Amino acid sequence: MLDTIPQARAMQLQLLGYQSESLCLRAPLAANVNDKGCAFGGSLSALMTLAGWALVVLALKARGDEADVFVARAEVRYIEPLFDDLEVSAQWASNEDRNRFFDTLSQRGKARVCIESQVRGANGPACMQTAYFVAKRQDRAQ
Amino acid sequence: MLDTIPQARAMQLQLLGYQSESLCLRAPLAANVNDKGCAFGGSLSALMTLAGWALVVLALKARGDEADVFVARAEVRYIEPLFDDLEVSAQWASNEDRNRFFDTLSQRGKARVCIESQVRGANGPACMQTAYFVAKRQDRAQ
Repeated sequence: MLDTIPQARAMQLQLLGYQSESLCLRAPLAANVNDKGCAFGGSLSALMTLAGWALVVLALKARGDEADVFVARAEVRYIEPLFDDLEVSAQWASNEDRNRFFDTLSQRGKARVCIESQVRGANGPACMQTAYFVAKRQDRAQ
Repeated sequence: MLDTIPQARAMQLQLLGYQSESLCLRAPLAANVNDKGCAFGGSLSALMTLAGWALVVLALKARGDEADVFVARAEVRYIEPLFDDLEVSAQWASNEDRNRFFDTLSQRGKARVCIESQVRGANGPACMQTAYFVAKRQDRAQ
């Protein structure tokens, strides 16, 4: 990510943790601040999308599956301003959805999966995202 | 924006045009590219949010209204990959919604408005966002 996405570098992303169930990223407030001194909405949304994307990409890599992954849809709710470093975690929406995703990708070469992400706030999540990612085998025509 | 939001600088934002009805921003692909050589989803979504935010802020300024504006919710649809510079336009969802927003803000000191944004693609919009912004008078308690 840091090598190929200039905005990931500009956000000063760090990987906080990764398990097959979830992935956590962190970015300092100073690089991602807005005019009001709190976290910039664009950084929050980008960080949640990147965490979800990385979770899907790493799961496919672990299965030896070569597929391009891209975000197709995202719904973001900004709950409260964040005056701290940005810490996001991304999880599969459900095991059923994840398993269906792997099966459909094997069978059809293309599949969609739902990922839930949150940014940690002072009183529960500062913002939440539900996003749908599409994976497409590189040998599959449009 | 460029003075106070580091990510707006990193994205190399430019103002393309502003009328009371719509606002257009531009950002070069090179600064906003992803691992696949097309526009980074995080930049697309941030650009659409910034254009909407700026449209609301400038409308309030033109009315002499002092209010903080922040994004509360956003739904983004990524339609096709974009291999060109990013050009976004943001418009009020409807005149009725805009007028209700100004009226409610005057009466209650807090109001919500819907803004539609699109990024220009090769075959129609590359992505679209529907976002809700909240304006709150600075003299109004939480």
